[in-house]
Amino acid sequence: MAKEHADYKPGLDGVIACITKLSLLDEEKEQIIVRGYDLIELIQKTSYIKVAYLLIYNKFPTDAEAKAFEQELMAQADIPDEMYEIFKLLPKKTMAMDALRTGISILGGYEDHAVLMDTSTKANEEKALKILAKAPAIAVNSYRAIMGLPFVKPDKSLGYSENFVYMIKGAKPTAVETDTLDKILTTYIEHEMPNSTFAVRVVSSTLSDIYGSCASAVASLKGPLHGGANEAAMQMFLEVQKTGGPATAEKYIMDKLARKDKIMGFGHRVYMKKYDPRAFLMKDYIPKLVDQRPDGKDLYAIYQTIEKTMAREKGLYPNADYPIALLYYLINVPIDLYTPIFLCSRLAGLVSHHIEQQENNRLFRPRVIYEGPRDLHPPV
Amino acid sequence: MAKEHADYKPGLDGVIACITKLSLLDEEKEQIIVRGYDLIELIQKTSYIKVAYLLIYNKFPTDAEAKAFEQELMAQADIPDEMYEIFKLLPKKTMAMDALRTGISILGGYEDHAVLMDTSTKANEEKALKILAKAPAIAVNSYRAIMGLPFVKPDKSLGYSENFVYMIKGAKPTAVETDTLDKILTTYIEHEMPNSTFAVRVVSSTLSDIYGSCASAVASLKGPLHGGANEAAMQMFLEVQKTGGPATAEKYIMDKLARKDKIMGFGHRVYMKKYDPRAFLMKDYIPKLVDQRPDGKDLYAIYQTIEKTMAREKGLYPNADYPIALLYYLINVPIDLYTPIFLCSRLAGLVSHHIEQQENNRLFRPRVIYEGPRDLHPPV
Repeated sequence: MAKEHADYKPGLDGVIACITKLSLLDEEKEQIIVRGYDLIELIQKTSYIKVAYLLIYNKFPTDAEAKAFEQELMAQADIPDEMYEIFKLLPKKTMAMDALRTGISILGGYEDHAVLMDTSTKANEEKALKILAKAPAIAVNSYRAIMGLPFVKPDKSLGYSENFVYMIKGAKPTAVETDTLDKILTTYIEHEMPNSTFAVRVVSSTLSDIYGSCASAVASLKGPLHGGANEAAMQMFLEVQKTGGPATAEKYIMDKLARKDKIMGFGHRVYMKKYDPRAFLMKDYIPKLVDQRPDGKDLYAIYQTIEKTMAREKGLYPNADYPIALLYYLINVPIDLYTPIFLCSRLAGLVSHHIEQQENNRLFRPRVIYEGPRDLHPPV
Repeated sequence: MAKEHADYKPGLDGVIACITKLSLLDEEKEQIIVRGYDLIELIQKTSYIKVAYLLIYNKFPTDAEAKAFEQELMAQADIPDEMYEIFKLLPKKTMAMDALRTGISILGGYEDHAVLMDTSTKANEEKALKILAKAPAIAVNSYRAIMGLPFVKPDKSLGYSENFVYMIKGAKPTAVETDTLDKILTTYIEHEMPNSTFAVRVVSSTLSDIYGSCASAVASLKGPLHGGANEAAMQMFLEVQKTGGPATAEKYIMDKLARKDKIMGFGHRVYMKKYDPRAFLMKDYIPKLVDQRPDGKDLYAIYQTIEKTMAREKGLYPNADYPIALLYYLINVPIDLYTPIFLCSRLAGLVSHHIEQQENNRLFRPRVIYEGPRDLHPPV
């Protein structure tokens, strides 16, 4: 590499991508700051709806404002009939994240061109609300179509998280299920500049539309190095349970480490070797829920053994995906929906980054180091 | 801004995003290097198929290899019946780029999961070929569905560019039409690290799939600051023609400049105040084609006057979108398809960046400067 490129950082590691008033991972204070608030305190004391409002409108809502916002989301929660028809026409082997990506992409077609391409804050906020409102119906019902299950259309009389569980389950949720999903949604809502958020800012900087930004984020979050980690962690717990149960968990991990396999759900580019504060909080919800499923206690024992082994052997601690994988399982969420739900939650952050980017835009257009040949000529 | 962030570059201007062997804009030599070849020489002496092969397989093809590649693309050129059904169900006001984004997103659902998520070069090359093969049928026929026009399925007996024009036109193309489209496709094929290519590399770095990468690129290229410029340039020529004709072109631009309106098709972040070499080449194809349409001569006069006025007043020269807009028009391509065709062309470069990124991957995960508040607490 030439000397003038000594400052090249692969993966833009440590490079500043933008100025934001949305969030920060403060590694020194081990704090996730969202619009000035500590995310952990927000998860403990507030709700998904309130934090989504805070992100999009840059104001912590009063109870009345939060209620009106939730009512507006629920009023717009259903999707057009043609979208249900399209879901039935998707190939049955479509991955759930890809069906969600397609659904969000289609949604943009229901806007008038002028509204769709309007980059003003007001226009973007209105489109953001539509996306947030309809994403759960898209995520759950496109998955249902692929699985050959009947559609469960939104019940507009329910709350946002309650309706989300209702569509997943196909029956009225318990308070525990709704509360747990609401905590998961709030935990995942915003996290500075992960790859999917960066993808949104890159795309939105061409002054393209918010539906395209969000579809790009779905594509990004699907990746095994990003949102796909929660599904992989759960598959690991189930594999240990199936092949030998909790007593074999330590050996399972030691063998994997000996083969230099990657263990999903541990470590994080930014947190490095510290405990992800979200994981630290969410793990405490597990013990209360282990009786929700017959294999809950065993899976929790496996979870604990793997965590201890990883800390001892590698000095690595769980990230948010690790406890959330088990929490999803304990409230009976199908594994294929773990990442789509993560995406639905993160949408509140993603649309806020789209809005902020277009409020003070500069086109992303970096350069490269070219290491290929030169001066070649095609045969005449 | 804090002193430690003095190196922050908005839009990552001048920041190195990656090492590549694919292409480079060499501003000093005013050359676009593609796999070691001068793009201008490739446009003049070879064909879209040969340069696409060169990009994807990193080898300039023999005539036999190019022919076999084109035959394979044409063998796979059609899309499943269900996709035609889905196109009919899209809202009629869907923008053509959004329909293309949806179509590429759907296409991923036809792959087995293991193949879809396989990041090896061989697996990615096979998926890349499918995308390249089917993109023209998706772009043209989703547009036809939105416009209420009958579908024109690919004619597999035709060449790649010939079939592309055939589907657009709904009739056998002339040699001039096919040759012009082939030159346009080759001109747009690859261009270092514009926003859409960067979007591909960001998304692919999560080890997500190539269909998602390409769908993100569609979202990016749609933006008015990126691929949307060719449509905007043509709308400008037509507006001048409608409101007063060639004699009024200079005043039209002077008025726009006085209002500080942006004139589309001029300037480029990297070329700055030099002539885009692609524009310099492509302008020479226009005079031969002005008789293809009754208003061709007038539009070309408007084109020339605007170019001269911009050079005199602003020292700005046309980028590739400026002459290509008029070339599209002269071969009767509907304006709504300008950017979708640009995307189809660029796909050869985009899939090659996806492949290269996953061959030597590092997750893109930059940081931010946080300028929001701190230490806020939600009301209890």
